[in-house]
Amino acid sequence: MPNAARPTEVPAHLRAAVDAAKQKVAALHAELPRWELVVWTAGNVSERVRDDQGGPDGAGDLLVIKPSGVSYDDITPEAMVVCDVQGRLVEGDRSPSSDTAAHAYVYAHMPEVGGVVHTHSTYATAWAARGEEIPCVLTMMADEFGGPIPVGPFAVIGDDSIGRGIVETLRGSRSPAVLMANHGPFTIGGDARAAVKAAVLCEEVARAVHVARQVGEPVPIAQQHVDALYDRYQNVYGQR
Amino acid sequence: MPNAARPTEVPAHLRAAVDAAKQKVAALHAELPRWELVVWTAGNVSERVRDDQGGPDGAGDLLVIKPSGVSYDDITPEAMVVCDVQGRLVEGDRSPSSDTAAHAYVYAHMPEVGGVVHTHSTYATAWAARGEEIPCVLTMMADEFGGPIPVGPFAVIGDDSIGRGIVETLRGSRSPAVLMANHGPFTIGGDARAAVKAAVLCEEVARAVHVARQVGEPVPIAQQHVDALYDRYQNVYGQR
Amino acid sequence: MPNAARPTEVPAHLRAAVDAAKQKVAALHAELPRWELVVWTAGNVSERVRDDQGGPDGAGDLLVIKPSGVSYDDITPEAMVVCDVQGRLVEGDRSPSSDTAAHAYVYAHMPEVGGVVHTHSTYATAWAARGEEIPCVLTMMADEFGGPIPVGPFAVIGDDSIGRGIVETLRGSRSPAVLMANHGPFTIGGDARAAVKAAVLCEEVARAVHVARQVGEPVPIAQQHVDALYDRYQNVYGQR
Amino acid sequence: MPNAARPTEVPAHLRAAVDAAKQKVAALHAELPRWELVVWTAGNVSERVRDDQGGPDGAGDLLVIKPSGVSYDDITPEAMVVCDVQGRLVEGDRSPSSDTAAHAYVYAHMPEVGGVVHTHSTYATAWAARGEEIPCVLTMMADEFGGPIPVGPFAVIGDDSIGRGIVETLRGSRSPAVLMANHGPFTIGGDARAAVKAAVLCEEVARAVHVARQVGEPVPIAQQHVDALYDRYQNVYGQR
Repeated sequence: MPNAARPTEVPAHLRAAVDAAKQKVAALHAELPRWELVVWTAGNVSERVRDDQGGPDGAGDLLVIKPSGVSYDDITPEAMVVCDVQGRLVEGDRSPSSDTAAHAYVYAHMPEVGGVVHTHSTYATAWAARGEEIPCVLTMMADEFGGPIPVGPFAVIGDDSIGRGIVETLRGSRSPAVLMANHGPFTIGGDARAAVKAAVLCEEVARAVHVARQVGEPVPIAQQHVDALYDRYQNVYGQR
Repeated sequence: MPNAARPTEVPAHLRAAVDAAKQKVAALHAELPRWELVVWTAGNVSERVRDDQGGPDGAGDLLVIKPSGVSYDDITPEAMVVCDVQGRLVEGDRSPSSDTAAHAYVYAHMPEVGGVVHTHSTYATAWAARGEEIPCVLTMMADEFGGPIPVGPFAVIGDDSIGRGIVETLRGSRSPAVLMANHGPFTIGGDARAAVKAAVLCEEVARAVHVARQVGEPVPIAQQHVDALYDRYQNVYGQR
Repeated sequence: MPNAARPTEVPAHLRAAVDAAKQKVAALHAELPRWELVVWTAGNVSERVRDDQGGPDGAGDLLVIKPSGVSYDDITPEAMVVCDVQGRLVEGDRSPSSDTAAHAYVYAHMPEVGGVVHTHSTYATAWAARGEEIPCVLTMMADEFGGPIPVGPFAVIGDDSIGRGIVETLRGSRSPAVLMANHGPFTIGGDARAAVKAAVLCEEVARAVHVARQVGEPVPIAQQHVDALYDRYQNVYGQR
Repeated sequence: MPNAARPTEVPAHLRAAVDAAKQKVAALHAELPRWELVVWTAGNVSERVRDDQGGPDGAGDLLVIKPSGVSYDDITPEAMVVCDVQGRLVEGDRSPSSDTAAHAYVYAHMPEVGGVVHTHSTYATAWAARGEEIPCVLTMMADEFGGPIPVGPFAVIGDDSIGRGIVETLRGSRSPAVLMANHGPFTIGGDARAAVKAAVLCEEVARAVHVARQVGEPVPIAQQHVDALYDRYQNVYGQR
């Protein structure tokens, strides 16, 4: 993707979409403490705002994300910040989340992704601390993740390495979640709500499979059943 | 049971009973997140509406259930959907829960059942992932379940196999709960509230017995005491 | 204690004290779900109302307790029931808690006790399922319990055996909590609030010591330190 | 530090600062139950009020802390008490927290500390019960603690020994948290909010690393990465 010039402000034709995304992203942040995925100010949700006039490969797209180190009590649509897909600040009074570079890298390299979530949810983080993927032993896991939840590489914040690790692990995987080693889960989705759902279910299966393993061994699900469950869930579940 | 023609609408003589069941079932759904049995949109409660004019063996009975993939914040009596006991939609703006076929199968084959609940509650699901029944080592478990909580077969969604697995496991068992292998608990009761109670207590005993086993072995309760506790609880407890 | 004739109503000179106890006991029930000690309708708090004109050894005392099988949403002062210390109903529209006989036995045989609480809190119940006392490895435990939390005998509901088991275990113990085998904790105190506090701290130390033991061995506290901590806490802590 | 004469009241020039600290400390206490770090009345937060006219080495500084044995429902700015840095009561209707001597010792001996928090949070206390430090296996832990969370000595309340144990362990450590053996965590910070943050994150990493260890071994993080993460987080994270 070409390294587009940084926009100095939100283009007029994206104003309404950016404002809608701020509303949505602010509201979705409330789901993280609600489902006990975060403590204090940790965790963040972002959503892509697509710019059809923004040049090839989504180079003009923007992302809306939480500011850095802000309490969940203080999250409002107005507090959200806007960056370009190189992670550079476009609009907002505060510094963007220190995980913005990782979110931006995913948007820049996975055009189908419309939402990204990062948490340090306890059980998923524990699997990440051991560098162990979560085996697919629950029908709910086959439904949502289509197989095991994979582990990504150890990567230090400050350059592209977290983003690269996410993209390399999730490209070609059915799973919308990756456990970054010694760090915690990142999840993706068609929009921010889908990425939040994946974060919630990732922690839930991380916890249930952990509990199952504490006193014995869970029974694997045969691959053909995993495939059938995944196919049905992706194509039939919910309202259409 | 004869495969009755699908009703095209709620019969007039069942209108009041269906509306009352919608109120009750919507309110009972709030108990699932309250007792931390579900995350996101998972889990569902249903109640049977009996039709005494509906032909032999309850063939005209209806069931009220949650729509598929709907947030717990959006559950209202009006949002509930009505199906017949073959699981076919009779009334409602949305698709019924994707677990409706399993609920319907239970109502069609266990005439004494008036309520069904399904969750993926963490500890019960962990026992289900190992395919291991919960041994009866607590007086609370003897009271409510009358013995171990049994495991049902692995079954894939999409046909009758989940419903059949539930019915085959619970018929002739004292337990109102079954742990469907690699999936999660289903519970039954005389009405929806009783089935919700069984779901709450199933998770509670799944958790307490799990914790007991983590660092040693729980002491079994002698069968005669299990029998005495079960008999008293079913016949004396609560208000009459 | 003489088996006094059952009062047919609350004596006039105890009216104000009974009504005050109903207020207090109803309010204290909210602490049980707040600190996650109970699910559904399980658990109960009672308080003694002393009758100085009631004959020798507190034979005329009353107790205020929760009715049986009632939701925590429906607990009001008016819903509370009054029994004598033989556990017989004196006032109230509903059946008393099915644990009333155990509470009453404690009041009848331990004159210093003014409040009793029973829960099935998860971690305390897990120790009870193994029939294992909780070793005193935390300063908070030395403060409140003055040593290990002991296990009481297995006893079946329906006669005096639970009450006897509680009294035999706690008499002569510093601990205000007993883990009744395969059942759950009962706690006592000078009033209902003190018994609720003991129930809350019992679960907290049951959980922390369980977690400590899951991956190693907690370090014991020397007896002289346990004694010093207990003495200070009982005589210095709080407001006087 | 010279053992200054005890002030008999809050000096006029500190009135506004003391009142502001009462507001802040009262509000921060709500974070302890919110993040499930405490039960009942356990736990306390304090903040230093610096007195630039108070003599050498902060000898005239005051601290604002919670009264002893008071419910979290009853914590208001007016209920807070003021002590000097010898732990003697200066203002307030109630006895100060029984942990005041430990807080005061820290303020008297670590001039850079502006806030102190003490809890019995479950997982941190479990590590403390085993006398085991928490290894640094999570990036979040490298960020906030800069390495392992150390264990302090066993110390009995009633003299300087808890305060001394905290100071000796944390002096020269990057970690703002110490696990006092068989007791629980104490955390420090530049102000009370920073100390509360450290208490919240201490429990979170105590839990996640415990869970990771339950079924295997977490992978260590190389020292150079720990150093880089700590440096970045201390200098870049949040709003400036």
